[in-house]
Amino acid sequence: MIRTAVVGASGYSGAELVGLLAAHPRASVAAVVGAGSAGRRWEALYPGRAHLFRGEISAWDPGALAGLDVVFLALPHGESAVAAASLVGSVGVIIDLSGDLRLADSATYRAWYGREHPAPELLGRAVYGLPELFGDDLPGAGLVACPGCYPTAVQLAAGPALRLPAAGTAVTASAVSGTSGAGRSSDPALSFSEMYGDARAYRVGRHQHVPEMAAGLERYAGRRVRLTFVPHLIPIERGILATIVVPLDEPVSQHEVLEHYRAAFAGSPFVRVLDPEERLPAVRGVAGSNRCDLAPVVDAAGGSLVVVSAIDNLVKGAAGQAVQVMNRVLGFPETEGLPGGEEAT
Amino acid sequence: MIRTAVVGASGYSGAELVGLLAAHPRASVAAVVGAGSAGRRWEALYPGRAHLFRGEISAWDPGALAGLDVVFLALPHGESAVAAASLVGSVGVIIDLSGDLRLADSATYRAWYGREHPAPELLGRAVYGLPELFGDDLPGAGLVACPGCYPTAVQLAAGPALRLPAAGTAVTASAVSGTSGAGRSSDPALSFSEMYGDARAYRVGRHQHVPEMAAGLERYAGRRVRLTFVPHLIPIERGILATIVVPLDEPVSQHEVLEHYRAAFAGSPFVRVLDPEERLPAVRGVAGSNRCDLAPVVDAAGGSLVVVSAIDNLVKGAAGQAVQVMNRVLGFPETEGLPGGEEAT
Amino acid sequence: MIRTAVVGASGYSGAELVGLLAAHPRASVAAVVGAGSAGRRWEALYPGRAHLFRGEISAWDPGALAGLDVVFLALPHGESAVAAASLVGSVGVIIDLSGDLRLADSATYRAWYGREHPAPELLGRAVYGLPELFGDDLPGAGLVACPGCYPTAVQLAAGPALRLPAAGTAVTASAVSGTSGAGRSSDPALSFSEMYGDARAYRVGRHQHVPEMAAGLERYAGRRVRLTFVPHLIPIERGILATIVVPLDEPVSQHEVLEHYRAAFAGSPFVRVLDPEERLPAVRGVAGSNRCDLAPVVDAAGGSLVVVSAIDNLVKGAAGQAVQVMNRVLGFPETEGLPGGEEAT
Amino acid sequence: MIRTAVVGASGYSGAELVGLLAAHPRASVAAVVGAGSAGRRWEALYPGRAHLFRGEISAWDPGALAGLDVVFLALPHGESAVAAASLVGSVGVIIDLSGDLRLADSATYRAWYGREHPAPELLGRAVYGLPELFGDDLPGAGLVACPGCYPTAVQLAAGPALRLPAAGTAVTASAVSGTSGAGRSSDPALSFSEMYGDARAYRVGRHQHVPEMAAGLERYAGRRVRLTFVPHLIPIERGILATIVVPLDEPVSQHEVLEHYRAAFAGSPFVRVLDPEERLPAVRGVAGSNRCDLAPVVDAAGGSLVVVSAIDNLVKGAAGQAVQVMNRVLGFPETEGLPGGEEAT
Repeated sequence: MIRTAVVGASGYSGAELVGLLAAHPRASVAAVVGAGSAGRRWEALYPGRAHLFRGEISAWDPGALAGLDVVFLALPHGESAVAAASLVGSVGVIIDLSGDLRLADSATYRAWYGREHPAPELLGRAVYGLPELFGDDLPGAGLVACPGCYPTAVQLAAGPALRLPAAGTAVTASAVSGTSGAGRSSDPALSFSEMYGDARAYRVGRHQHVPEMAAGLERYAGRRVRLTFVPHLIPIERGILATIVVPLDEPVSQHEVLEHYRAAFAGSPFVRVLDPEERLPAVRGVAGSNRCDLAPVVDAAGGSLVVVSAIDNLVKGAAGQAVQVMNRVLGFPETEGLPGGEEAT
Repeated sequence: MIRTAVVGASGYSGAELVGLLAAHPRASVAAVVGAGSAGRRWEALYPGRAHLFRGEISAWDPGALAGLDVVFLALPHGESAVAAASLVGSVGVIIDLSGDLRLADSATYRAWYGREHPAPELLGRAVYGLPELFGDDLPGAGLVACPGCYPTAVQLAAGPALRLPAAGTAVTASAVSGTSGAGRSSDPALSFSEMYGDARAYRVGRHQHVPEMAAGLERYAGRRVRLTFVPHLIPIERGILATIVVPLDEPVSQHEVLEHYRAAFAGSPFVRVLDPEERLPAVRGVAGSNRCDLAPVVDAAGGSLVVVSAIDNLVKGAAGQAVQVMNRVLGFPETEGLPGGEEAT
Repeated sequence: MIRTAVVGASGYSGAELVGLLAAHPRASVAAVVGAGSAGRRWEALYPGRAHLFRGEISAWDPGALAGLDVVFLALPHGESAVAAASLVGSVGVIIDLSGDLRLADSATYRAWYGREHPAPELLGRAVYGLPELFGDDLPGAGLVACPGCYPTAVQLAAGPALRLPAAGTAVTASAVSGTSGAGRSSDPALSFSEMYGDARAYRVGRHQHVPEMAAGLERYAGRRVRLTFVPHLIPIERGILATIVVPLDEPVSQHEVLEHYRAAFAGSPFVRVLDPEERLPAVRGVAGSNRCDLAPVVDAAGGSLVVVSAIDNLVKGAAGQAVQVMNRVLGFPETEGLPGGEEAT
Repeated sequence: MIRTAVVGASGYSGAELVGLLAAHPRASVAAVVGAGSAGRRWEALYPGRAHLFRGEISAWDPGALAGLDVVFLALPHGESAVAAASLVGSVGVIIDLSGDLRLADSATYRAWYGREHPAPELLGRAVYGLPELFGDDLPGAGLVACPGCYPTAVQLAAGPALRLPAAGTAVTASAVSGTSGAGRSSDPALSFSEMYGDARAYRVGRHQHVPEMAAGLERYAGRRVRLTFVPHLIPIERGILATIVVPLDEPVSQHEVLEHYRAAFAGSPFVRVLDPEERLPAVRGVAGSNRCDLAPVVDAAGGSLVVVSAIDNLVKGAAGQAVQVMNRVLGFPETEGLPGGEEAT
């Protein structure tokens, strides 16, 4: 049993991680850390999960984590890189769920996050933890930047498309997200009374994950990509549904595209490629699981390829992905301790 | 006071129409018609609106409607054209809310609706009732095909964009809709238990409103348009949020685009062009009103123009639009009897 | 046209009031006051209602309100009585929507509100503004304490029951409320992510409205009442559904009880007594209206009378009730400017 | 590994059962039976649970089930008893989730279910499977009538109260339920569009589970009980929150009542008695688990004892309870294969 800690264990992603790790057959939770809730019982914050884990939340103290096998950082961006910097060298593996370590340079960070990077010496040192596209980077890594909800949903949908020779350069991605993506919030705009019955666009053209997604897609496809990304908030608690559209410069058959996607994810136990004639992705098809459902559709009239993907933002878009990354880094079976990964027989 | 009838008064759009017409200062509701609910009291079906209208629902009998000033058809496609055919000549104005009379030819209808057109002799005879783009066609019209929820939200958002010289040809439209767009339904997939917490794509690449939207945009912009449209269902009752993306072949400033949109809708009391720096469209900003909120955003990184629009699918996307059309046809003030059209002072 | 002001115009009840008063045929809104949002535009806070009212929010300044015909206080308890005290004598009518002026003595206030009453000299001076039970007190009143959501739903349901000779003394009231009853909130427990899919009991046995409801029922019924009240929060935005149960000491027929309720509310345009054989109250039947739907049911097996009532907490449970009170105080028709009050014909 | 079958595997309770049994360490799912969906793949109906179980749905054929260790019946009442009758003697244990076998005599069934009992010879032969109140009946039973959602929530809350000497006879129970309690439905009244934002009372005074609950409480408390039960539907998918009120003939202290409840459920791993000073039951605290959270509150002003309980209607109120019953019947550890039963350490 490896020993792990979750820093930021009182937030939604952190709490999801605690639950997954507590039930993981090869891991134990040695510490749950939370600055604002230190001294409180974790199970008092999450009474619905008291059967999964019980323990007191510790204050942030990097020394107390020294020697642990894996430390997960489920902190807001800005805070996360600082925490990572103080842990490098003293713990086995650091898996960061924030956006802090996902970009290559501090100028891009400054431009899109609107602040100086808090630990620029770490930039470029972290492996990007998207197992389905870049899984070969993971075994033995010591510092992993784990992509979150939009980057995961968009890159899994668009990546294979951009490897099609017929695909154009301009990718449009429109996504709807549940409110848990914003974290535990006291913003009245995210109150039940304000979100109920609403659907909103936000941060159009300036969401901080745009350069990360574009860079990931360019690396995976090996060519230039121009990404327009429009996020929306809808009144569900968890889940992301992303729809990407890529123009097709020449006709491609639906059959060919479907086979292309199936081949791309043949070794990925958490991606389910759906035949759109039978079923299209839906949030309820993936809620609570670490799976990404996706379906490519050739739109002949529009001259484009549409790919729809669905994930649970707190699992495949956060905590589950982090555990999957841990499994790959440490050489555990990829699906260990994760719901939704093995098709039952 | 003109005398009107609503055929299909027990459905959601029809019921919304009954409420609006009953409160309209220049109209009265002479008949509410509903095949399946004939003989029942309308207010028993809609007890929350009993203070607006009370009356017995009649069986469909075109003769009984002869001589009325305006008859609204809020029927499923396929049925609506048949009803319209039997009323032409015997009533003053026919305003059809279905898709039956919106296309120019029966081949397109067959290809996208999957059936023969039930009254092909009416094709091409109806005026297309989108007041903000084609309002000059309306005064004095006798047969109007009133565009519904997606066509209204998408065309209002994309129309002005396509008049920009810098705009490309390939339009991507992604929209989320509340469940009332599917009408009063007994489909278990639309039950509360199945829709709760879900978000789904559907009819990707083959929604029947695609050719109508493409044709409207081509007419308004005076050039060829290639439209990719992806509809999604989300768990709200009413509302549509549409996001359209048009590639920009050369840079355009945000200021220029905003002014362009403001000019395009300067005379339209029901369109509110928002400055995205201040606010982006949201369903709750238009729910219950006949307004369309929209905001254009230049996405420099993506090299595109994004326009987000929001409407209430049962008002601006159905019943309210129909009343607005009636107002224009008969020369009444455009905002008469409609919520959301005049800015208070 | 009388001149009115709404103090607390940025909260949910206050905003609802602004909308109703702006559309009222005999009233104008001379001032909208809000401490925290002074200087902002009201329509920027409520863009969905910009067509109803536009104006700048003023800071609280009692002198600036002097001479107005009616001032509505939509403030948190504790603040409201202080504001009322500074307006007495300088404005025509004060209508307070808080609980501050609804109790008879400061000891009860201290016991249930957990604080000293901030203006005890006003206690006992305000008329209790529940038009259906105590409407004769209203004409000409200068200071009215307007009951809110739970007190209205519970007293309208239980009042007539307790005038039945067969009714026992112990009243049980269980109610579910939408989240808007808690006001515009930054409490994470009321965030969408936390409320979604939840239903909770709260303040069991110690809700501050218990003594007000008990006193009102005792006064109306002319006898002692022992009230057990259990409030619950459910994930809807607006609406209250209250279920009261009164033991029956001897059998009463369903017919007799139904006629008794119809007689009790014969002159009340906003109460609709439903025959439970046909329909039971539902929140959607009253949402957006000033109506209270209620149905009494004799439960023979349980030996009790059950009465279910439904109101919109922001209308009949707050803003609409306040306008109805204004109408009665000033001698306007009771239903003027209020939705849901007149049965259409 | 015992071999089980689920009859009614395409309904919500049946599907929940399939998932639980497939993951149960001592059970396997040998057959999934569903009349209407025979021949289809189970995982196509429940794609979100395809990782839990995959298999073809069989038509109903009692012979094909002969020799199985446990057969669960998740069928509508009326159908269930007929199925049970055809299985008695040929399978090891029959666990029926419907209400068919829960009453003692056919006259009561006729009065409350409005139909003749379809297999009266089975009445009185089934053990009532509520482990926390009547668990000693379970070991070795061959036919178990498993109580569903309302009976479980109400009896666990009210049972211990009625063993208090101070408690009166008249119990009031008011409960709110999510829509999944109505099963997979094509009733437009249960569509998303109609349920959204609604809360409704239904079957007031005549819900078919009233006599079952009254009989269970009388047996547990050893005295006469007069029950008034009012069910309500609210817009959540799963969960029940029940609030029961019992008059107190003499004062009882909060401490005493809390200890009384803790003692009553000391050996029950799935009941968590909450101290209401710290927390009150909420649906989200039990969703997805087999736990019942409950809290007793002495209401001094009302002269009553209030007990609030929360369960997941599809787990503790259906499938989880059935598995818990199976565990007790066969001598397995009570919490085996069930979420929420063991407090983590």
